[in-house]
Amino acid sequence: MAPRDPKDGVEAGGGAADEEADIEAPLLGSYGSSSFLLDPAYEDGGCDDERRRRRLVGSHTQSNTTSQVALVGADVCPIESLDYELIENDVFKQDWRARGRGHILRYVALKWALCFLVGALAAAAGFVANLGVENVAGAKFVVTSDLMLDGKHGTAFAVFLASNFTLTMLAAVLTVYVAPAAAGSGIPEVKAYLNGVDAPNIFSLRTLIVKVVGCIAAASSSLHVGKAGPLVHTGACIASILGQGGSRKYNMTCKWLRYFKNDRDRRDLVTCGSAAGIAAAFRAPVGGVLFALETVSSWWRSALLWRAFFTTAIVAVVLRALIDFCKSGKCGLFGTGGLIMFDVTADYVSYHLVDLPPVVTLGVFGGILGSLYNFLLDKVLRLYNFINEKGKTYKLLLAATVTVCTSCCLFGLPWIASCKPCPTDTQEACPSIGRSGNFKKFQCAMSEYNDLASLFFNTNDDTIRNLYSAGTDDEFQISSILVFFVASYFLGIFSYGLALPSGLFVPVILTGAAYGRLVGMLIGSESTLDHGLFAVLGSAALLGGSMRMTVSVCVIILELTNNLLMLPLVMLVLLISKVVADAFNANVYDLLVRLKGFPHLEGYAEPYMRQLSVSDVVTGPLLTFNGIEKVGHIVHVLKTTGHNGFPVVDEPPFSGSPTLYGLILRYHLLVLLRKKDFIRSCTASNLNASKHFSHDEFAKRGSGKHDCIEDIELCAEELEMFVDLHPFTNTSPYTVLETMSLAKALILFREVGLRHVLVLPKSSEASLSSLVATLGPLLAASGAVIPNKLLSSAIAQITRLVFVFLTSCIVFVFLTSCIFFIAHKHVL
Amino acid sequence: MAPRDPKDGVEAGGGAADEEADIEAPLLGSYGSSSFLLDPAYEDGGCDDERRRRRLVGSHTQSNTTSQVALVGADVCPIESLDYELIENDVFKQDWRARGRGHILRYVALKWALCFLVGALAAAAGFVANLGVENVAGAKFVVTSDLMLDGKHGTAFAVFLASNFTLTMLAAVLTVYVAPAAAGSGIPEVKAYLNGVDAPNIFSLRTLIVKVVGCIAAASSSLHVGKAGPLVHTGACIASILGQGGSRKYNMTCKWLRYFKNDRDRRDLVTCGSAAGIAAAFRAPVGGVLFALETVSSWWRSALLWRAFFTTAIVAVVLRALIDFCKSGKCGLFGTGGLIMFDVTADYVSYHLVDLPPVVTLGVFGGILGSLYNFLLDKVLRLYNFINEKGKTYKLLLAATVTVCTSCCLFGLPWIASCKPCPTDTQEACPSIGRSGNFKKFQCAMSEYNDLASLFFNTNDDTIRNLYSAGTDDEFQISSILVFFVASYFLGIFSYGLALPSGLFVPVILTGAAYGRLVGMLIGSESTLDHGLFAVLGSAALLGGSMRMTVSVCVIILELTNNLLMLPLVMLVLLISKVVADAFNANVYDLLVRLKGFPHLEGYAEPYMRQLSVSDVVTGPLLTFNGIEKVGHIVHVLKTTGHNGFPVVDEPPFSGSPTLYGLILRYHLLVLLRKKDFIRSCTASNLNASKHFSHDEFAKRGSGKHDCIEDIELCAEELEMFVDLHPFTNTSPYTVLETMSLAKALILFREVGLRHVLVLPKSSEASLSSLVATLGPLLAASGAVIPNKLLSSAIAQITRLVFVFLTSCIVFVFLTSCIFFIAHKHVL
Repeated sequence: MAPRDPKDGVEAGGGAADEEADIEAPLLGSYGSSSFLLDPAYEDGGCDDERRRRRLVGSHTQSNTTSQVALVGADVCPIESLDYELIENDVFKQDWRARGRGHILRYVALKWALCFLVGALAAAAGFVANLGVENVAGAKFVVTSDLMLDGKHGTAFAVFLASNFTLTMLAAVLTVYVAPAAAGSGIPEVKAYLNGVDAPNIFSLRTLIVKVVGCIAAASSSLHVGKAGPLVHTGACIASILGQGGSRKYNMTCKWLRYFKNDRDRRDLVTCGSAAGIAAAFRAPVGGVLFALETVSSWWRSALLWRAFFTTAIVAVVLRALIDFCKSGKCGLFGTGGLIMFDVTADYVSYHLVDLPPVVTLGVFGGILGSLYNFLLDKVLRLYNFINEKGKTYKLLLAATVTVCTSCCLFGLPWIASCKPCPTDTQEACPSIGRSGNFKKFQCAMSEYNDLASLFFNTNDDTIRNLYSAGTDDEFQISSILVFFVASYFLGIFSYGLALPSGLFVPVILTGAAYGRLVGMLIGSESTLDHGLFAVLGSAALLGGSMRMTVSVCVIILELTNNLLMLPLVMLVLLISKVVADAFNANVYDLLVRLKGFPHLEGYAEPYMRQLSVSDVVTGPLLTFNGIEKVGHIVHVLKTTGHNGFPVVDEPPFSGSPTLYGLILRYHLLVLLRKKDFIRSCTASNLNASKHFSHDEFAKRGSGKHDCIEDIELCAEELEMFVDLHPFTNTSPYTVLETMSLAKALILFREVGLRHVLVLPKSSEASLSSLVATLGPLLAASGAVIPNKLLSSAIAQITRLVFVFLTSCIVFVFLTSCIFFIAHKHVL
Repeated sequence: MAPRDPKDGVEAGGGAADEEADIEAPLLGSYGSSSFLLDPAYEDGGCDDERRRRRLVGSHTQSNTTSQVALVGADVCPIESLDYELIENDVFKQDWRARGRGHILRYVALKWALCFLVGALAAAAGFVANLGVENVAGAKFVVTSDLMLDGKHGTAFAVFLASNFTLTMLAAVLTVYVAPAAAGSGIPEVKAYLNGVDAPNIFSLRTLIVKVVGCIAAASSSLHVGKAGPLVHTGACIASILGQGGSRKYNMTCKWLRYFKNDRDRRDLVTCGSAAGIAAAFRAPVGGVLFALETVSSWWRSALLWRAFFTTAIVAVVLRALIDFCKSGKCGLFGTGGLIMFDVTADYVSYHLVDLPPVVTLGVFGGILGSLYNFLLDKVLRLYNFINEKGKTYKLLLAATVTVCTSCCLFGLPWIASCKPCPTDTQEACPSIGRSGNFKKFQCAMSEYNDLASLFFNTNDDTIRNLYSAGTDDEFQISSILVFFVASYFLGIFSYGLALPSGLFVPVILTGAAYGRLVGMLIGSESTLDHGLFAVLGSAALLGGSMRMTVSVCVIILELTNNLLMLPLVMLVLLISKVVADAFNANVYDLLVRLKGFPHLEGYAEPYMRQLSVSDVVTGPLLTFNGIEKVGHIVHVLKTTGHNGFPVVDEPPFSGSPTLYGLILRYHLLVLLRKKDFIRSCTASNLNASKHFSHDEFAKRGSGKHDCIEDIELCAEELEMFVDLHPFTNTSPYTVLETMSLAKALILFREVGLRHVLVLPKSSEASLSSLVATLGPLLAASGAVIPNKLLSSAIAQITRLVFVFLTSCIVFVFLTSCIFFIAHKHVL
């Protein structure tokens, strides 16, 4: 909701901003994709050469920039857009008509079968990740605990440090050298993909494997990173790989899969995959669907809701079966811990109006802490980007530094906590022996335990469970919780930007739980609520403040704790913390998407867009093809530009007057050129395209794989021949009039999921061929064209307004709660 | 998902179909709204005259039907479309620029304040409805029970019958004579409204009051009707009334509300209102949001998700506070029963792979029963429509007949059940004295109870709670459950179509619970699952089979029973029953929308639409205005047509060539005519429109209120003057090329939420003025234009295909379950 400066994108990327500054003007350009931002932080080195080359080309074709009408764009980057639009050309229509009942049956069956597979595989991935973490981290904790029990503190530290270091470096080396795209949580990548951004390698098989293995290693290494984000990426990877329609290289494709070779079906499948990821991470099927709907996806249909729901149901069933299998003790250390499902007992469901003030307080400060979290994360990531860009060694060094510091923290801090005598009435062993448990002995005597060590020396999942437990109000000291809260707050921030798979969800939940307990302890006897409930609400507050999700976080938390009766409280906390945090900055995923340089197209129009018309932002020159075009011209245009779509205009003698026939895509042209099915003269051919071409040949290949004009060899004779573009031209492109306001064009672009919009003249007098324009990167153009001074002042004004309003809201809420509080005290 | 015959709409409405058959051709028409279906079942008698008059007009203006390009439409009905598009004319833009920070602040604050109000009022309405039902029905049951206790069986029956009769007739008389739009559940009306259909009176204050009062009376009268549907309608009514922006008639409008006087904000508010309705009915805040998202709304934005969530959170908090208040016993008989929240204890959460076969069986038969329910409901409603159309007396007679039959059933059937001895180990009194309870004595001896009477002689909510209770496997006899299931199945069907507020949700849940128990009993010791759990799953199965919702029903059931651990089972049952039921017919709401004759525009394109282009379906003479138009011509056009939008084309000498300037709306023209701010000669005026007109004057009035051209009196001199339309013309209308395929145009129409699409020529040669066409009722046109034979055969083929596929799925699932089952038996 926060208005964002369109220049932010250009400035993002830290040190790289200066380098990019000089190409701001060509940024108006960047056709061929709805992207306009280059990705300075991106790992692929090849991009730079490409970019430099294109820039030269760009400046060449930009000679005619005075013209207001033309294909927008000049600068190209490996990030392409996805084609969600149905390309309704003759070949497609023939194919559509030819689809018999068998084809439709296969298509529908396959759609559901693929969803089933995505669900089952995502569940398996989630299970493997948990199994790995529980066993690896468990073994580490058992060894360390045993050594501490024997009093060998030094050896214990050495083992702890060494194992953490090894695990972190394993994850980092794999990520840096095998699959750089596997770094981070992956949710921004998935979000960008579903918005139409096709970044290279984000869904490759290598990324998938490194993500799973790296995630296990990273989460086991006591770094404050989570599994949820990587699992979302894993789910999306699985979906994308299954949706490739087999591999042409290994001849593994089959006829059955041919209808899936398009970006639309892949998008749907990836949406289901991301839902499955969250479902597998938290065993929250409904939460997974809502997460995909609220946070990740840009387009949504009700049919998709059902399919995503089916996928997450499969995840739930498969996970349940796998856990049942593990209950027999065949999974090593898994049985005791396992997938997060904090069965918090329903002891503390009674709450009344008088509990409102502490809950509101929790929400307000949770919002502030959450936005501060985002702010600090942003700063740290810019610093890390600066270091990471220096080379692979620096990346590894950074990871090593952070893991050593973390280990020192985790091992050092418990020494400052005083030992507590074991409670007598607990069922659990005290001090706890083995992998998990609330009562770690650490340096204490035999009948005592160290509460801070109990928090630090557990996997994140176990710590969260301990903090969420009801009836444990006296188990922790306030100082320990405070230390733990501060430590996990900053460890979470410093662990995220490393070059290894790392989620944000679990650290935030963990920190929030500590925060909630802390507030509960500070309020003390003023509130009747259990501290375990406070921990749950604290998690909600911090999640609301950082991620800014409402419904999905609410449902995920309810599914985690299996307690629906506290729904109103969780909702309240989430709403308050989101409102408070929105006053300060954007949500963490938007921030990451921007930092990564993905050109994310928002679903709403900025106010200034109402004042601009489409004709204000199109820029030249326009490249069109005739209905029957010379091969040489096509090759020249394809070689000298990076455009993805070209209007096809029939001019006399093929029509009475210049007539817009439609839009043809680059990859269709490449197929035509490769086939070399040319005609000798410039006359209308009665070619039956569907006999020469099967629709299969035009199927779009999977993510990142693009054909290249340079690979096609044509002799001089062929270059002089002609090709009839009519059967391959999409005759149903979406169009807008030049007088259309930019805001409305943006809505059209976003709602329908377009990559190209043709801009038409409003007058019938203007020659069509000179006025048809492809409005590619709408956002790009609009962001750069408008006078920046005017815009930024307008935005600043709105920001201030929102700020004033929200601040007054907060003050109002706070005062009301205080009055409530005082009134309550006086009445009782 | 089931393909539907576009002719179905015309055939719907039972007896009225024949009458409509002769106007099929003009149905191509019906401009001025995206509606094309007349509403034969609609209560408003005035519609017929209007229709007949328009038909004459239609045949007159249709003289030029050979032309393929023109405004589509000829026949008009009181059902208008809503304008969701932003009308970007000069006046709007001026106003937009003039909005200072104060205005924006107010607008945002008001938006949230209105959501708060909607939530609070919907919660209050839900509470009042429950309070009323619990007290009225409670008093009735107490009196009847006391009489039965004294052995006065005859008197008891007389009291029971008389009170039921009185209550039913109260509801029916109110509905028939005060607000006919309050009949039925109201969800179809809300669904249609959110799809863009503005039926008259569905959201008036009268409807609201009758809905609440009638709902209490009807639900208390032991009819098998629910409160959920009426509460959704109530929530939507409240939202719509609050969204009117005050009342101009009573001078109750204020400047603050002026930005709300448009259909977009009203739509958002009504969406929140419908979510609040479900939240209030089931105390299911998340379920409410999902229900609005999945079932009711046609357009959804993520900002709306948050706002709807806020609204339902308010509902939850207010309900909680009201219930807290009632716990002190100040609410009469309310304290013991109250809002549905079946706190089913978490005793039976253990289930394993071996429980799959019974659950799958439950789902399959639930799907069959659900689709059968829809089928029978459809037939009964057609019969009822036939009776109801005969007049108001017939409506009352029908209601009277049904209530008498129901009372006889409820009182008569328990006599066939044998008495059971009271269990000794229960905490509850047996036989139960007073309002509710599991052990009704009825005709039995003192230490015995009648289990069938215990089901019949309770409010629906209490019966559901009894059926859902865990650990009550021996409480009911299989014969009693069977009788109850059959009775409530048919009573539910026969109670719905009466002329009184009646929901479908609760009867289906109740019947499903009985069905689940029945299956549980039949399976017996083969399954380890508790019969209470079977009841919950049975409800899910029948809801899935009838309503075909997945995520929302799942969440609602979980929120009802407060048990998240059975989520995978509920999901599984829902998916199976939905798949099975989809093989047979459409969901119950689609069925009702069609029966009511609302022209609902689906969000997906039918396959045949890919083969048609937009130019194939535009028809009629096109009516355009010049930029500066003679007043007399405008008045003539407005009087002789019912069009809502007119293209404005500048012709020489005002432009070099015919130029499309934009689209002007009927109600803007009416404002202009009323203001009488005309110019004498046909020359461009430098009128500063925003000085003469405030944006407020163009604000669209609330639902059902339309200005009329007949109310405007103009003298002969004025008719000869001119008016400059430019400042009032929307310069950003959405346009498509004539070659655009119908399917893609439909997607544009639906996704962006349009009422008008302008169709442009593809060639620059064709004169613009003769080729610009307004493509209003896209669906309408397409449904009627294509050759029906071809279409219906295609649809039949697809239907068969789907059927074969689903049947094989079912068989496969069934065989698998059987194998599982046998394997399990052999292993153990």
